[in-house]
Amino acid sequence: MKNEETDNPRRNGEGLENPSRRTLLRGGVAAAGGAALAAGLAARGAGAAISQHADPLITDVQDWNRYPGDGVDARPYGLPSQYEKDVVRRDVPWLTADSKSSVNFTPLHELDGIITPNGLCFERHHGGIAEINPVDHRLMINGLVDNELVFTMEDLKRFPRENRVYFLECAANSGMEWRGSQLNGCQFTHGMVHNVMYTGIRVRDLLNEAGVKPEGKWVLAEGADPSLMTRSIPIEKMMDDCMVAFKMNGEALREEQGYPIRLVVPGWEGNMWIKWLRRFEVGDQPWQQREETSKYTDLLADGQARRFTWEMDVKSVITNPSPQAPITHGKGQTVITGLAWSGRGKIARVDVSLDGGRNWQEARIDGPSLDKSVHRFYFDFDWDGSELLIQSRAMDEQGFIQPSKDELRAARGTNSIYHNNGIQTWYIKQDGSAENVEVSS
Amino acid sequence: MKNEETDNPRRNGEGLENPSRRTLLRGGVAAAGGAALAAGLAARGAGAAISQHADPLITDVQDWNRYPGDGVDARPYGLPSQYEKDVVRRDVPWLTADSKSSVNFTPLHELDGIITPNGLCFERHHGGIAEINPVDHRLMINGLVDNELVFTMEDLKRFPRENRVYFLECAANSGMEWRGSQLNGCQFTHGMVHNVMYTGIRVRDLLNEAGVKPEGKWVLAEGADPSLMTRSIPIEKMMDDCMVAFKMNGEALREEQGYPIRLVVPGWEGNMWIKWLRRFEVGDQPWQQREETSKYTDLLADGQARRFTWEMDVKSVITNPSPQAPITHGKGQTVITGLAWSGRGKIARVDVSLDGGRNWQEARIDGPSLDKSVHRFYFDFDWDGSELLIQSRAMDEQGFIQPSKDELRAARGTNSIYHNNGIQTWYIKQDGSAENVEVSS
Repeated sequence: MKNEETDNPRRNGEGLENPSRRTLLRGGVAAAGGAALAAGLAARGAGAAISQHADPLITDVQDWNRYPGDGVDARPYGLPSQYEKDVVRRDVPWLTADSKSSVNFTPLHELDGIITPNGLCFERHHGGIAEINPVDHRLMINGLVDNELVFTMEDLKRFPRENRVYFLECAANSGMEWRGSQLNGCQFTHGMVHNVMYTGIRVRDLLNEAGVKPEGKWVLAEGADPSLMTRSIPIEKMMDDCMVAFKMNGEALREEQGYPIRLVVPGWEGNMWIKWLRRFEVGDQPWQQREETSKYTDLLADGQARRFTWEMDVKSVITNPSPQAPITHGKGQTVITGLAWSGRGKIARVDVSLDGGRNWQEARIDGPSLDKSVHRFYFDFDWDGSELLIQSRAMDEQGFIQPSKDELRAARGTNSIYHNNGIQTWYIKQDGSAENVEVSS
Repeated sequence: MKNEETDNPRRNGEGLENPSRRTLLRGGVAAAGGAALAAGLAARGAGAAISQHADPLITDVQDWNRYPGDGVDARPYGLPSQYEKDVVRRDVPWLTADSKSSVNFTPLHELDGIITPNGLCFERHHGGIAEINPVDHRLMINGLVDNELVFTMEDLKRFPRENRVYFLECAANSGMEWRGSQLNGCQFTHGMVHNVMYTGIRVRDLLNEAGVKPEGKWVLAEGADPSLMTRSIPIEKMMDDCMVAFKMNGEALREEQGYPIRLVVPGWEGNMWIKWLRRFEVGDQPWQQREETSKYTDLLADGQARRFTWEMDVKSVITNPSPQAPITHGKGQTVITGLAWSGRGKIARVDVSLDGGRNWQEARIDGPSLDKSVHRFYFDFDWDGSELLIQSRAMDEQGFIQPSKDELRAARGTNSIYHNNGIQTWYIKQDGSAENVEVSS
């Protein structure tokens, strides 16, 4: 049903022809050297027009040009604009007893594309950030090897390098949601994930250099931070695609991310990506460390625990609109966007529902589609201003499909903290605001 | 010819078995929970071993663990480690009269992979950095269109978005090299290039919204900075792949790069990528602005000038080793790496020469190969410690091959400042240091 008020671009133009408006725009003309009418966007296909704005162009144009700005010597290392000061990592103080063994969250609702800027990659520490002088740092290989070795940073940079974009997700991401919607914003429900390009060397080359003995089946990776973070990793994974990374998004690793080197374990839970990496020990069985027994295992309803559930399941979330990023432009042409990822490879398809999962439509994936990397999806639609229950559901190239939260709970109960990849729901109200809600499926 | 001193890993291990060394390493064992020998890397295939280091592991291990570090609330927006403080953009004060109309350079020799971090993307301004409040910013479309329009930032974000990784190179990059080697370091000879992922909308959608009249053949893009930067761009390019970008590498554009919006003109010279974009005017011919007549044209030996040479030619440079990044590890296994790019598409092949262009060997391209994006190449070789003249030569998917500087000068003389894509030579001395030199071809 057409809306005469908004569907007709000519009407939109005519609608502006009131004297005061015309005067303002004449001013704009003089300043900008061209005639100007307010925005009138006819939606693609049938749809409502974008709302119009009364601020005259002239004030904007003049302000920006009154004075020359900073020169090229003012900002040796650049920072975001003052108008982006709220785009930051945020922690939840009541979540943990000490900020040195805690987590903060990536502001997913403020980002787009697939690259997470280094300054906004979420942090998870177990003893605070280790500050290491790379000149003094070493990586040791010992245990069931022919030659036990110690490498300096300079040594490591002499091996052949590779560049890969991978997501890193904490196994506890969305963990609060097992027991129902808790945190109001995708930064907090899904912000323990980031996606960067790593430059580093293959673990395989280092282990082959040391010479793994036939009985060597597991590798203990150890960090140099105060928590002495350690995880047991099967030799097959280490020999397959694991990396020792020294750069992220082109520059040196950030201290929060393990400077000068971290282990990269593509597609597997973030806790295994040992930061401030200092040692590989080769052994014949797992070490049963705290982080792979009492932590990072999944306690089921019957008291049994799933162990070694390293591979991150297919998952997605709508980042906009969301509780921290409401719709502010009113009805009409609207962009829904979000992220999808899988530890099992590329994302094959993302569907979006506007009615809490009753009906699904395929979203558009745009940007590089890379193995074990987040994918960016968009769903462009014409919002009629009514309430919505928006959800996204991802499918990976192996055919795994993201389950509903109810399906997850039916299979695993609600004791779990880790590995929640359930479908997330945002309730969009008529005023465009959004809330974290549950819908039964 | 084998070197008994260095080629034999067992000898390397045995070489460490002197009393003092053994004591240190026993200490290391206790602290790190495993036996440790110093590094002995046998090069892949036949080659020299990596030099060894006497610093014991134990001191490193203990230091990093004496105290817990910063918590997750300490760094809302993260910055590089203090040990990376020299990794910055640098300007050359004598190059221009005023830093507000000047350039600084990306530290290419400190980076790897293909993404340039936002804080290190080179800057080129003609009136300093405009500081714009996005709430008050507007984009106007006027001239030969059916409906002249003004868009707010919120309006623009309602159009369908896309994500693309593109290089941006200033036409004057390597400009000093026309008259012989001048600046000693790839940051200064080639650092007017960066490569980021842009998120934005298609210019095509905006122009179609306004409705371009049949006689509309050119678009004037205008910036809101004090220099009122303006360039004329053919309508075909604008309708093809140009974007209005509002994000780079996931976050909002940096002010130095045009916050809140810049024009993206894939593969074409950087000066056309109008920053602080405020207006598109559609016309029937180019505007003959300063930046497309007296500037950004190529004056030939006969006094004639090449005009509208927008497409950036195929080019490459070795970033390591280079004058700012000498070889410090001595002979043996060595990594040569660099960047290659072309305004005409993907890079098909990069060759490396160690002898000033007499002999060439194919380099390994690693990482995503994307249209009109930089490509990262590596050449892993066994340096015998003798002098080298290292060069790289790129070929793009259209078959264009990077020329020698002599070939360029024969065709265009030496009046030019812009569009130098000649092959660069670094002279590597026996001590590993490097110099910017010329070799006749």
